[in-house]
Amino acid sequence: MYHFADRLIAAIRRCRNPVLVGLDPRADSLPQGVQAARPDDLQSVADAYRTFCRGVIDVVAALVPIVKPQAAFFEELGPAGMVALADVIRHAHARGLLVLLDGKRNDIGSTATAYARGYLGAPPASPWGADALTVSPYLGDDSLEPFVDVARQRGAGVFVLVKTSNPGGKQFQDLSADGRPLYQHVAALVENLASQTRGDGGYGAVGAVTGATYPQQLAELRGLMPHSWFLVPGYGAQGGTARDVAGAFDAQGLGAIVNSSRAIIFAHSRKEYRERFGDARWQEAVEAATRDMIAELGSETPAAKLN
Amino acid sequence: MYHFADRLIAAIRRCRNPVLVGLDPRADSLPQGVQAARPDDLQSVADAYRTFCRGVIDVVAALVPIVKPQAAFFEELGPAGMVALADVIRHAHARGLLVLLDGKRNDIGSTATAYARGYLGAPPASPWGADALTVSPYLGDDSLEPFVDVARQRGAGVFVLVKTSNPGGKQFQDLSADGRPLYQHVAALVENLASQTRGDGGYGAVGAVTGATYPQQLAELRGLMPHSWFLVPGYGAQGGTARDVAGAFDAQGLGAIVNSSRAIIFAHSRKEYRERFGDARWQEAVEAATRDMIAELGSETPAAKLN
Repeated sequence: MYHFADRLIAAIRRCRNPVLVGLDPRADSLPQGVQAARPDDLQSVADAYRTFCRGVIDVVAALVPIVKPQAAFFEELGPAGMVALADVIRHAHARGLLVLLDGKRNDIGSTATAYARGYLGAPPASPWGADALTVSPYLGDDSLEPFVDVARQRGAGVFVLVKTSNPGGKQFQDLSADGRPLYQHVAALVENLASQTRGDGGYGAVGAVTGATYPQQLAELRGLMPHSWFLVPGYGAQGGTARDVAGAFDAQGLGAIVNSSRAIIFAHSRKEYRERFGDARWQEAVEAATRDMIAELGSETPAAKLN
Repeated sequence: MYHFADRLIAAIRRCRNPVLVGLDPRADSLPQGVQAARPDDLQSVADAYRTFCRGVIDVVAALVPIVKPQAAFFEELGPAGMVALADVIRHAHARGLLVLLDGKRNDIGSTATAYARGYLGAPPASPWGADALTVSPYLGDDSLEPFVDVARQRGAGVFVLVKTSNPGGKQFQDLSADGRPLYQHVAALVENLASQTRGDGGYGAVGAVTGATYPQQLAELRGLMPHSWFLVPGYGAQGGTARDVAGAFDAQGLGAIVNSSRAIIFAHSRKEYRERFGDARWQEAVEAATRDMIAELGSETPAAKLN
C-alpha cells in the first residue's frame, strides 16, 4: 500500500470521511492561550504556530484522514517559520495523518526536480516529508513531469491547480482556446498524468485543485477526469456548501478531499462555537467544527457511502 | 531612490551592464574545494551552498547589479537550506548587490499577502529581505495584487511569469484565446500593473519573465509592455545568445536584466575556463565568465549604450 492514492483511499475509508483540515496559522487569529509571547519576534510567533498547529493536529488526528499546512504562513516568518513547518509535518505524521503541503510550487525541469525531491516522500529521502504537494501548471508539461517522476518513485502525490476558487481565477483559467477554457486544457494534461500513474484503487498519483465555488465545473471535471483525485478548496469560509461539492465525488464517495481551514482551526471565533466553548476551550471548538463538517458532507454528498 | 525599478536602473548604470547572476547551487556541480564534507548530511550540504554562494557573490559584487538565488535548491535541503538561503541574501546585500529571489510563488489573496510580506522588502519588515520575487500568474489578477501592494509599500519588485524559456512553456502559454496567445493576456495584466506603479525612470514595480529562447516574442513584448522590466532567463546554458536578447531592451539599453546561472557559477567546469583556471581557481573562472557575458551583451545589444 505504497501508492499515494491508495494510501489516501485507505485513510478515508478508515475515517469514513474526506475532510482535509487546512493548517493556516495567522498571528492575529490564534486563541488567546496560544498567542505569541512576543508578537514582534519571529521566533516567538513561529513557536506559537507550532504549538497551535500541534494542538489542532492532536484533535483532528482521530477524526480526519489528512491535513494541509499552508507554506506561505510559515515562510512569512523566515527560517524560524520553516523550522516550525518541518516540525508540524513531523507531528502530523506521528499522529497518523497524511500531509498535503500547500506550496503551489513550480519551475522548469531540473529546478522542479529540486522542489519535488525536497518536499515529496518520507524522510530521509525528503527533508520536509510531505505526502503530497500542490503545484502550479503555467510552465507546462515538462515542469510537471519531474514532480510526477519523484511522486511515483516515493509513493507521493501531486495536486495541480486547475480551477481555483478565488474570483480572479476566472481571468486566465476561463479564457477559451480551441473551443474550451484553459482550465480544461490543464485538466486534460492532469488526467493524462493521472491515468499513467494509477494505483490499485484506479486513481493516479496526480490530482487536481478544483474550487468548491464552481459546482457545475466540479461535476463536469469529475466526468472528464476519472483517474484524478480532486482537492476541493473554498468550502465554508469561501462560501462553498456540501451540495456545491457533491459533484466532485465518484459514485463510491471517493475521488475528492474537501478542504476547510479557517472555519475549523479558528472555530473558537465563530459565533456558534464561541458561545459553546469560549476561547479557552478552542480545541473543543475545532473538534465540534470538524464533526459538523464531516456530518454535512456525509448527508449531502456521495461521501455518505463511506459510512 | 526607494522605488525598485529606480534602484535597479541606478545599479545597472553604476555597473554599466544588465547581467543577473543566478545562484543555483547543486551539490554535484560544486568545485572540489567547496564540496560538502558529508554529502549525505543536509546541514553539511547547506554549509557548502552557503560557502559557495558567498564565494560567487564576493566575485560578482564588483561587476554586476543584481543576483538571483534559486529558492528550490535551498528548499531541497529542508530547514537547514532555508537558513543558508537567508544568509546568502544577507551577504549579497552586505556586498551592495540587489537580490531577486526566484521562488515562483503565488496563492489566493490573503495567502499571497503572506508570501509577499515574507519575501519582499528590507528587514526587519521582511525576514528574507529580497528586493524582488518571481511570481506565477495562473491564479489571476487578485492573486498578483497583494504582491504589488506590498512591493509598492516596501520599494520592492515583482516579476511575473509571462513567456518562459523551457520547451513545455508553449503548451499553455501559446494557446490562442480571443485572437492572441495566453502569454499576451498575462502580458497585458502585467503591463497594466507596471504602468500603475511607475517610478521616476518610467518603469513599474512589476515586471515580466520572458525567455531568451524566444527572440521574436521578446521584441514583440518590449513593444507591448513599455513600463515593464524584463527578467530574461535562458541565456547561455539554455541556448539564448546576446543577439537573441537584444529585443528585450529599450533604446537606452535599459528595460531588461539578462540571467545566466550555471554558465557563470559553474564556469570552472566549462572547457574554456577549466583550461585557464582549473578547479581550484574557480572564483577566477566565475569572474572571467561574468566579464565575457558583460562584453557579449555590451557589443551585441542596446546595453552597449550603458558604457
